[in-house]
Amino acid sequence: MKKAGFIGTGVMGSAMAGHLMDAGFEVHIYTRTKKKAEPLLEKGAVWQEDPASLTKAVDAVLTMVGYPEDVRDIYFGENGILDNGREGTLLVDLTTSRPDLAEQIAEEASKRGMHAVDAPVSGGDVGAEEGTLAVMSGGTKKAFSLAEPLFHAFGRRIEYMGGPGAGQLTKAANQIAIAGTMMGVSESLAFAKESGLDPDQVLSVIETGAAGSFSMSKLGPRMLSGDNEPGFYIKHFVKDMRIAIETARELDLDLPGLEQAEKLYTKLMQEGWEDAGTQALFQYYVKNR
Amino acid sequence: MKKAGFIGTGVMGSAMAGHLMDAGFEVHIYTRTKKKAEPLLEKGAVWQEDPASLTKAVDAVLTMVGYPEDVRDIYFGENGILDNGREGTLLVDLTTSRPDLAEQIAEEASKRGMHAVDAPVSGGDVGAEEGTLAVMSGGTKKAFSLAEPLFHAFGRRIEYMGGPGAGQLTKAANQIAIAGTMMGVSESLAFAKESGLDPDQVLSVIETGAAGSFSMSKLGPRMLSGDNEPGFYIKHFVKDMRIAIETARELDLDLPGLEQAEKLYTKLMQEGWEDAGTQALFQYYVKNR
Repeated sequence: MKKAGFIGTGVMGSAMAGHLMDAGFEVHIYTRTKKKAEPLLEKGAVWQEDPASLTKAVDAVLTMVGYPEDVRDIYFGENGILDNGREGTLLVDLTTSRPDLAEQIAEEASKRGMHAVDAPVSGGDVGAEEGTLAVMSGGTKKAFSLAEPLFHAFGRRIEYMGGPGAGQLTKAANQIAIAGTMMGVSESLAFAKESGLDPDQVLSVIETGAAGSFSMSKLGPRMLSGDNEPGFYIKHFVKDMRIAIETARELDLDLPGLEQAEKLYTKLMQEGWEDAGTQALFQYYVKNR
Repeated sequence: MKKAGFIGTGVMGSAMAGHLMDAGFEVHIYTRTKKKAEPLLEKGAVWQEDPASLTKAVDAVLTMVGYPEDVRDIYFGENGILDNGREGTLLVDLTTSRPDLAEQIAEEASKRGMHAVDAPVSGGDVGAEEGTLAVMSGGTKKAFSLAEPLFHAFGRRIEYMGGPGAGQLTKAANQIAIAGTMMGVSESLAFAKESGLDPDQVLSVIETGAAGSFSMSKLGPRMLSGDNEPGFYIKHFVKDMRIAIETARELDLDLPGLEQAEKLYTKLMQEGWEDAGTQALFQYYVKNR
């Protein structure tokens, strides 16, 4: 596995592909908007014109794109990955995507003698830049063992969660916890502000106790200062929540907290906040009062 | 302020009254069920037959009872605190109760030359036993300065949040954050379990990242092991959430996440879980699948 192809060089993907180069892999790249690939090309990455030619040129294909539809396209579409890999090719989807789609990719890969891993990450752009991402992976143990050296280039915590789709299921569990927590933090601070308390003081008093969370300590201050810059885009969080809701329904599992959070974030998107960071949920409560 | 009266010696109150004795106060106690006061009486506390005689005997009255109705009774009722204090008496309500009731007590106290502080605490039974509670206080600055030496007997973080009711508002903000977070954690772990992942592994992977919270790390393991013993009773949490919902409505603030959590916990109460710990919310998701 010395030649790695990377499809999707947005903020996260670029950083991860860069780490693969630093780790000694010959990195080939393809991305929809070539301009976004330029820094990697200058660094010595090899440009490929489409997923097909990229797949043919490498031992392992890593994908980090936006939505499950994009994943489906580049794996199953014309000039896609599955039709152009060869026996032994390793396929790693890093996109936060549907668990059932991950299973379908793994099944098709297996039929063709390829190895597939679903491996969504957490840690955001900072984790990608610093190479400290958590990687939640699913697939056969063989596929995981092949992918592990790649993961170590950009991840710190590399976890094998189970068969195909298990990485996506774990990421969904992660996003479900964030959804409820973000609602709790936003509502708490909106209440503090609107009731006339000093919300910064409230935050500092409650964040160290039973009400504390990563969301409160990292995003609470941004909520209160009105900083809505995206660490994590609302549009991507909505996508993640919808995947979790659909997957939960297939399990006959009712998650009303998650559904409530998805509704609030969807309203925010409809109001034009899709490119804001998830902490903008706070503004929604305050503005809609 | 050498003689302190304590009304309500449940688990929390007993521990706090004990710390006041250790700090050198002469502690008088009254509680509805005398049996609960026995350990303190053996330790040297003075028994009083009702709130009236207790109030007459001391410089400061501290109350730690169950519900806002109980607070109203012991302050405003016959043989209550307000009718039996004298000029300069300090009144401290430690119960998590209604902000508007705290304002009413402060107003009545002020008319009679007494000083009132609303000072709900957080940190639970462990914090009470160890004397490390957080104390969120509201009242005049004068009243707070009189109460501070008492607070230091059982609290570690003592915060003055503003005028009468500000302590209760801060505690409400705290409970609002917990409500959303508990829903997120319960739904996340229920999803992990029902989707066939190893939920203990999922917990350990996600608790250190963006999905992490006090609730996840402290109560998540109890959820997964089926330990529903109360650290914090569901019936008390429902009371707290209802106070927060009513107060938010008076502010024209819509908190759908909190309302959703209150509905779920109310259903749990109706199913007989009122004396379970708040982590039993996880069981609700799994059982109602």
